[in-house]
Amino acid sequence: MQTNLKTTPTDITAYMRELGMRARQSSREMARANTGQKNAALMAIADALLASRAELLSANAKDMEAGRKNGLDAALLDRLELNDERIDGMAEGLRQVATLPDPIGEIEDMKYMPSGIQLGKMRVPLGVIGIIYESRPNVTADAAALCLKSGNAAILRGGSEAFHSNQAIASCVRQGLAEAGLPAEAVQVIEITDRAAVGELITMSEYVDVIVPRGGKGLIERITDEARVPVIKHLHGVCHVYIDDKADFDKAVAVAMNAKTQRYGTCNTMETLLVAEGIAAQILPVLAEQYLAKGVELRGCEKTCAIVAEAIAATDADWDEEYLAPILSIRVVTDMDAAIDHIHAHSSGHTEAIMSEDITRARRFISEVDSSSVMINASTRFADGFEYGLGAEIGISTDKIHARGPVGLEGLTSQKYIVIGDGHIRG
Amino acid sequence: MQTNLKTTPTDITAYMRELGMRARQSSREMARANTGQKNAALMAIADALLASRAELLSANAKDMEAGRKNGLDAALLDRLELNDERIDGMAEGLRQVATLPDPIGEIEDMKYMPSGIQLGKMRVPLGVIGIIYESRPNVTADAAALCLKSGNAAILRGGSEAFHSNQAIASCVRQGLAEAGLPAEAVQVIEITDRAAVGELITMSEYVDVIVPRGGKGLIERITDEARVPVIKHLHGVCHVYIDDKADFDKAVAVAMNAKTQRYGTCNTMETLLVAEGIAAQILPVLAEQYLAKGVELRGCEKTCAIVAEAIAATDADWDEEYLAPILSIRVVTDMDAAIDHIHAHSSGHTEAIMSEDITRARRFISEVDSSSVMINASTRFADGFEYGLGAEIGISTDKIHARGPVGLEGLTSQKYIVIGDGHIRG
Repeated sequence: MQTNLKTTPTDITAYMRELGMRARQSSREMARANTGQKNAALMAIADALLASRAELLSANAKDMEAGRKNGLDAALLDRLELNDERIDGMAEGLRQVATLPDPIGEIEDMKYMPSGIQLGKMRVPLGVIGIIYESRPNVTADAAALCLKSGNAAILRGGSEAFHSNQAIASCVRQGLAEAGLPAEAVQVIEITDRAAVGELITMSEYVDVIVPRGGKGLIERITDEARVPVIKHLHGVCHVYIDDKADFDKAVAVAMNAKTQRYGTCNTMETLLVAEGIAAQILPVLAEQYLAKGVELRGCEKTCAIVAEAIAATDADWDEEYLAPILSIRVVTDMDAAIDHIHAHSSGHTEAIMSEDITRARRFISEVDSSSVMINASTRFADGFEYGLGAEIGISTDKIHARGPVGLEGLTSQKYIVIGDGHIRG
Repeated sequence: MQTNLKTTPTDITAYMRELGMRARQSSREMARANTGQKNAALMAIADALLASRAELLSANAKDMEAGRKNGLDAALLDRLELNDERIDGMAEGLRQVATLPDPIGEIEDMKYMPSGIQLGKMRVPLGVIGIIYESRPNVTADAAALCLKSGNAAILRGGSEAFHSNQAIASCVRQGLAEAGLPAEAVQVIEITDRAAVGELITMSEYVDVIVPRGGKGLIERITDEARVPVIKHLHGVCHVYIDDKADFDKAVAVAMNAKTQRYGTCNTMETLLVAEGIAAQILPVLAEQYLAKGVELRGCEKTCAIVAEAIAATDADWDEEYLAPILSIRVVTDMDAAIDHIHAHSSGHTEAIMSEDITRARRFISEVDSSSVMINASTRFADGFEYGLGAEIGISTDKIHARGPVGLEGLTSQKYIVIGDGHIRG
C-alpha cells in the first residue's frame, strides 16, 4: 500500500498522471480486445472474487471497524458491509455482464453515398473512464465489469471509508485481467484517499475521456463544477405521477402506491403526486388511507389538506425535495397543462408518469414533458437499466447530452464514421 | 440598438439572464412546434432575407468600413463580406434545411419488455443552444435554421466585427418566426459586443443546454476551459493519409493529391502524409513532383529528405501542425503499426485514411484508429456533412461524447425513453 508515501500535492499530481498514462496506454489494448477475451476476464474476476472470499471479508472488517470508530451511521455501515451473499452477488454480476452482447465494433447504417463511397458508423469505446463513487464496495466490481466489457480502461475512486475493501476487490480485478491476457492496468483503483486525487482525475483531459460520478447531490455538483472532462451525471430524482381526471381509478391507485412505496430510497421513486381537480375529491381519500397505513407522511397543497385531514401543509421547498423517504408531497392541479407546468418548474428531469385513459392527453404529455423517462399508465419505478433490458447500468443520466436515462454498456461507447472507397477522391 | 446602454457587468448579467429566460421559455414552444410550422418559418426567413437585401447590404457596408478602419486583413474582410450571391446562398441554405426530414418526435426501438411495458426512445430537442462564432455573418442564418428545424431555441453570439450584419439577419429571422406563428425569441442574437456576455452565456447552465463554438483553436480552447455548460466542439484537423506498401500505386497518388490540394484551408485536408518504407522510394518522387508543381511546400523526415531533394527537414512541431496552407509534412514509417502509433501520438482525432489493397490491414486500421472518421482508400476531404448526407452541418465534432464527426440536425437532439403501460406496477 503506497498511500502514506504519497501525500504532498506534487506527489499526488505525479501519481495521478502516471495512472492516467497507464490507463490511456491500456485503453488501446482494451479497444482491440475481442469479445472472448473480455468475457474470459469477467469470468476470471468472478472466480478470483469467490476464491478471495476470506481476504475480502478481512479487508472489509477493517473498513467496518474504522467506520464504527468514526461514527458512521447504521445506513452507511450497511452499505459498506461485505458478506457472503454480497460477494456472491458481485461474482454473479460479473457473469451477467459476460452474457451481454458486446457493443464494440458493431457497424450500423452502412450505405453507398452519391459519391460512391460507402459510409457507416462503428461503435467504439470512449477510451478512459473515471468513476467516482461512495461507500458501497460492490461498485468497484460492477463499474470495472461495465468498463471492461465496453472496451474501456477505467480509473476508479471509491469512498475512503471503503478503502481496504476496494483495494482487495481491485486485486481480484487485476488478477482476472491478467489471466485473460489483458493489461492489469486497464482497471486501476486510486490508492490515495486525499481529495486532491479527485481534483486531478477530473481535470486530466489528456488521459480521461469522461467522468461518471455516483453519489449524493453534493458530490455530483462539486464534480460537475470543477471538472474539465465531460461528466455523465446522475443527479437526483424528483419524479412525478400526474393523475388525470380521465384516469382509470384502480390503475391510478395501484401505480401511485407502487411508485411511492415499493422502495423509498431509489431515485425513480415518486416524490410528488399531482392530481387533477376533477378527480381529487374521489381518489385522494382512498390513496391517503393506503399511504397512511404504510406510514407515509403526506404534505399537501391547500386543496389537498382540505380533502385529506391527516396531510400537513407543504412548503414551497417541498416541491423540489427528493425525500428518499416515506414522505410524499401532493398537489391538486386544475388540469394537465398545470401539471406539465409544475413538472417543468420542479422536476429534476428523471422520470414522470401520467395516468389517463385519454389518448390525446397521453400523446401530449409524452411529447411535452422533457425528462429522461416519460411514462403513460406505468409506475416510475420501471425507470431502471434492468427493467429497460440494458442488463446492467452504471447510473441514470439526467443530462441531455450523450447518454440520457439508464446508462448501460452503450452509454460508455461512442461511434465513429467509417468510409470505404476504391480510390475515391472528391470532385 | 441597446448596445451602448449595457456595458457594466451587472447590466450584462441581467441582460444575459433575461435572454436566457426568454430562450428557455420559447424552447418549450419550439419543442411542440410541428414540422409544417418549422418549415414555414424557414421559408419565411428566406423570403425576409431576400426582401431585405438592401438593408443587409447597408448593414454589412458599415461592418466592412469599420473592418477596413480597424485593419482587418483581406482574408477576414472576405469572410465578413455580404453580397448578392451570398444573400441568395443564405436563403437557399434555409430552404434546403426546410427540405430535410424533421428528426423530432421520431420513435425508435419500441418493443415489449418482459414486464409487459412497451419501451421506446423518442427524439427530442436539446432545449437551448448557444452558438459562438466569428466573422462570417451567414453563420447567423445557418445556425438559426439548424436550431429551429431541430426544435431548439438558440442564443447566437457572432463576431463583433460582423455586428451590424448579424443584427440585420437576426431581424429577418425574428420576422420569419413570427410570420409562422412561432416565438420570435426562439432565436436571439446577443446585442452586446462585450466579451463578458460570452462568459455569462457559457455558464448559465439553468438556461443553456449546450454550447457550440465555431472558430479558431484559441476561441474553442478558451470556451471549453471556462464553460459550465456542455460543449460540442470542433477543435482542429490534423488529418493523416497512410500509404501502405500494399497500396495501389495510382489510387494512392490520386488520393494523396486530392486530400492535400483540393482545398488547403479546410479541417479535413491532409496535413501529414505517412508512407510505408517499402513503397516510399517509388511513390514519393512521383508525389513530390506533383505537389511541387502545385506549389506545395514539403517538410520531410530524414528518410523523406533522402528521397525528395526538394523537401526541407521537418521539425518535431511539424507533426502536430494544422497548416491550413499549401504545406505538407511527410514521414516514412516502417509499417502500418508505426503509422498507427504516429497517428495516436499526433492526430487531432478528426479524419485518417489508409491506402491499401490488403483487407486484413484495412480491417485493423479501421478498428484501431480512433478518429471521428476513419477511411479506407478514400480522400479525407469526404469527411463533411454534405458528403455524409446530413444535408447541413453545424460543425465537425472531434469530441467522443454526444456527437462525433460532422454534426447535423441529429447532433442538436437527444432521446428520451418513453414507456407505455396499462396500469403496470413493478413487482
